[in-house]
Amino acid sequence: MKAKAPSESLTITTRIVLPNDTNTLGNLFGGQLLNWMDINSAIAAHRHCKRVVVTASVNNVSFNRSIKLSDMVTVESKVSRAFGSAMEVYSDVWVEDHVTGQKIKCNEAIYTFVAIDQAGSTIQVPPINPVTDEEIRRFEGALRRRQLSLILAGKMKPSEATELKALFELTE
Amino acid sequence: MKAKAPSESLTITTRIVLPNDTNTLGNLFGGQLLNWMDINSAIAAHRHCKRVVVTASVNNVSFNRSIKLSDMVTVESKVSRAFGSAMEVYSDVWVEDHVTGQKIKCNEAIYTFVAIDQAGSTIQVPPINPVTDEEIRRFEGALRRRQLSLILAGKMKPSEATELKALFELTE
Amino acid sequence: MKAKAPSESLTITTRIVLPNDTNTLGNLFGGQLLNWMDINSAIAAHRHCKRVVVTASVNNVSFNRSIKLSDMVTVESKVSRAFGSAMEVYSDVWVEDHVTGQKIKCNEAIYTFVAIDQAGSTIQVPPINPVTDEEIRRFEGALRRRQLSLILAGKMKPSEATELKALFELTE
Amino acid sequence: MKAKAPSESLTITTRIVLPNDTNTLGNLFGGQLLNWMDINSAIAAHRHCKRVVVTASVNNVSFNRSIKLSDMVTVESKVSRAFGSAMEVYSDVWVEDHVTGQKIKCNEAIYTFVAIDQAGSTIQVPPINPVTDEEIRRFEGALRRRQLSLILAGKMKPSEATELKALFELTE
Amino acid sequence: MKAKAPSESLTITTRIVLPNDTNTLGNLFGGQLLNWMDINSAIAAHRHCKRVVVTASVNNVSFNRSIKLSDMVTVESKVSRAFGSAMEVYSDVWVEDHVTGQKIKCNEAIYTFVAIDQAGSTIQVPPINPVTDEEIRRFEGALRRRQLSLILAGKMKPSEATELKALFELTE
Amino acid sequence: MKAKAPSESLTITTRIVLPNDTNTLGNLFGGQLLNWMDINSAIAAHRHCKRVVVTASVNNVSFNRSIKLSDMVTVESKVSRAFGSAMEVYSDVWVEDHVTGQKIKCNEAIYTFVAIDQAGSTIQVPPINPVTDEEIRRFEGALRRRQLSLILAGKMKPSEATELKALFELTE
Repeated sequence: MKAKAPSESLTITTRIVLPNDTNTLGNLFGGQLLNWMDINSAIAAHRHCKRVVVTASVNNVSFNRSIKLSDMVTVESKVSRAFGSAMEVYSDVWVEDHVTGQKIKCNEAIYTFVAIDQAGSTIQVPPINPVTDEEIRRFEGALRRRQLSLILAGKMKPSEATELKALFELTE
Repeated sequence: MKAKAPSESLTITTRIVLPNDTNTLGNLFGGQLLNWMDINSAIAAHRHCKRVVVTASVNNVSFNRSIKLSDMVTVESKVSRAFGSAMEVYSDVWVEDHVTGQKIKCNEAIYTFVAIDQAGSTIQVPPINPVTDEEIRRFEGALRRRQLSLILAGKMKPSEATELKALFELTE
Repeated sequence: MKAKAPSESLTITTRIVLPNDTNTLGNLFGGQLLNWMDINSAIAAHRHCKRVVVTASVNNVSFNRSIKLSDMVTVESKVSRAFGSAMEVYSDVWVEDHVTGQKIKCNEAIYTFVAIDQAGSTIQVPPINPVTDEEIRRFEGALRRRQLSLILAGKMKPSEATELKALFELTE
Repeated sequence: MKAKAPSESLTITTRIVLPNDTNTLGNLFGGQLLNWMDINSAIAAHRHCKRVVVTASVNNVSFNRSIKLSDMVTVESKVSRAFGSAMEVYSDVWVEDHVTGQKIKCNEAIYTFVAIDQAGSTIQVPPINPVTDEEIRRFEGALRRRQLSLILAGKMKPSEATELKALFELTE
Repeated sequence: MKAKAPSESLTITTRIVLPNDTNTLGNLFGGQLLNWMDINSAIAAHRHCKRVVVTASVNNVSFNRSIKLSDMVTVESKVSRAFGSAMEVYSDVWVEDHVTGQKIKCNEAIYTFVAIDQAGSTIQVPPINPVTDEEIRRFEGALRRRQLSLILAGKMKPSEATELKALFELTE
Repeated sequence: MKAKAPSESLTITTRIVLPNDTNTLGNLFGGQLLNWMDINSAIAAHRHCKRVVVTASVNNVSFNRSIKLSDMVTVESKVSRAFGSAMEVYSDVWVEDHVTGQKIKCNEAIYTFVAIDQAGSTIQVPPINPVTDEEIRRFEGALRRRQLSLILAGKMKPSEATELKALFELTE
């Protein structure tokens, strides 16, 4: 299968935070944002492989800034790397200043999706060919994240996680 | 502050999967489940500390089984450990067989919440005193997960993550 | 069919009152709570009989306390008695004090469900064997409520409603 | 206060049953219909008294026919009687045949609302002056229903429920 | 096909503006009102022809007054004219004063629907026979609006739009 | 005020059509799409002027292709011209082929928004400086549409609508 650039799966969604999306403090619920990022990432994964995709895992999401009622939130997602039938999708979340229009980065999130056929079996997806510096950095990090997730799931021995071990050794 | 048992924060919610919660395959969207788990976990965190809580991170969620339209889904959440103002909340997700009534485990998810006061500053929460075997195991795992998340966020050196290093050394 | 205890059908749901659930006064709409209680009761009825169930009637619901925006509402439902294919389900609604965590009873509601097969015909459900004092009291009250509802629907003569008549005679 | 006719509070709403309103059988959930009837009845009660109204109780609802996905449902509500600050609202629910356009009666429901002022205290509402035969019949039945509900709530002795007792005596 | 009066398709819906329907200013979103008017108009079109109908175009909608949170909004729709398989539906939107109950006109909207059979082909609908003065005026205006819309879509030459040309000539 | 290019207000949203967004035929409701286009256009108008904006009118929307359940719909909106405090926003709607990924144009819609200050008074917005051929064509067409809409609202005499008259004269 021919490799594709992350930009071919770029998916953008802009939403306004409505009252039902907010908690007692008037901030966007984390769960609602998790939902929006999942849908946007799923479309990105679909655009990459043109197959039905299902969420396999949420690898890491940090909520660094609160997002307020009536804020305009933009989610941008791109496939960062493919492993067989799995695709890691990286999402960036931006909020826009109402006066200056400046976009401020609020969140990053990494989800993994799997492509399946009509019988529900997993199927291969095209590899990723990263282009920009950021895409290359995320492509490389994806291997470490995958090893970590396999270890945590008990599907890989820590001793085999060469990329991850290097992280511990290098920094000591 | 007096330590509390995880069971004091137990929060249970049962939902039926409605058409709008499902994708083209008739399965529950991952994002919708992430939303339900976030709300249920937030209530558990609130019950532990009686303070306003905000989602700080999603540490790890795996989707192991698909959940179908009209399935009855039960989310059970308990605080597994507290670190200063942060609370790790563990959620188990069960689906019920329509005929036998047997509950099948579908997902586990770990979210972290932070307690804040009215000015938005973080405040201390009571420690956790685990009681059952499972609660003790999750309490101990929480430290490794916290070190890992601090390393990934660049807030801790791998060499200081004693618990996590042991994992690599032990298993080699 | 083997009798079951009410506790075997216990169904619990906790929800946060969101802005769209509230009226001009910032209180939970009665209709939204009726909806939540119906869904929770239907799951309890299903757990009792393992069949498709449909709402047959709402027998009595009183709204005694207003429930506020962002309150945590817990609905607990159990089958209180079965009559052929019909099941009476009793729901208790609690609101939690944000500071003390104390649960305050807000509502009681009684719904009746009917079990049906795939052709839409009604089918027998297991009888109920009440255990606790409250379960026994509700089990006994169910007969009076059923007689009353049959009279109001013109399906029973008042003279045949022995349980109900006793109520009037005793208290005179 | 000047008496008003029930027709002055007539409130009509037509809705299409959407997928999320239906259960596994493709029928409208009872709870969703309870919600629609509550909102429509509340508007009728408001039109009668021009005050904020809150749901006080659901007196009786029977679900006689199932309502299907994509059916057009019309709810018509009118205040049937007023008692001090309380208003009994009668709702009729119709479904339209897609081909003939004929409207078929599906449900009747009786809700009670209370008018309150800005401090949350109950306030008097205008009395009802029934006009049509149906309005007179419902007006008269309202007294029996009110006595029944006061007895069930322990606020009236059965011996004082003259209207209700007559029902038992007459038919023996 | 036998002509029908506009009143035979009259469709009424009353809704309360909920928090999620409002923008930062606490006013009803234009898009939500467009949605409500589309559904109500579609039911009116269906009532006229008893066929599946699809929205073909929105001809003109002006938003003259803002509608506030918790306002009661009534949409009234009637078919104003039929052209082959197309039906022009006129909707009036009213808001009710909370104290006086007076209904204030807020919007007018004109949508066009097309009737289709199960294969998706368009099918003829009954003609309209306007009765009241307003119905006659709207019936006549419908021809001008149709010519205008055909010109804008490039399906009619301006020189053939006799009704529309008259408008320009008369007023010069 | 400094003129801005239409591209500075470009707003993109991608959504998946869910069950509740569809009618009996499994096609997206026109009203739901009107709602999505309104929100996306409002964000574009806000990005142009950095002020609160309210929908003033929907000038013309045609529904040319049906959009199916689970289709991925992308709405792209840009301000096409400004007139004092009013902004005309042009939206293009695309649907993506699930297999080839090709985007097919489904709709065009033109909405007008007005910028207001905190007192609700209209305020001037920056003019538009069109760049691409399409932007120039839409910029020029906006004047004709505005004259037409002023005539229909009775705020301009047809004889003053020089742009619009030319349309009729040229083509005769």
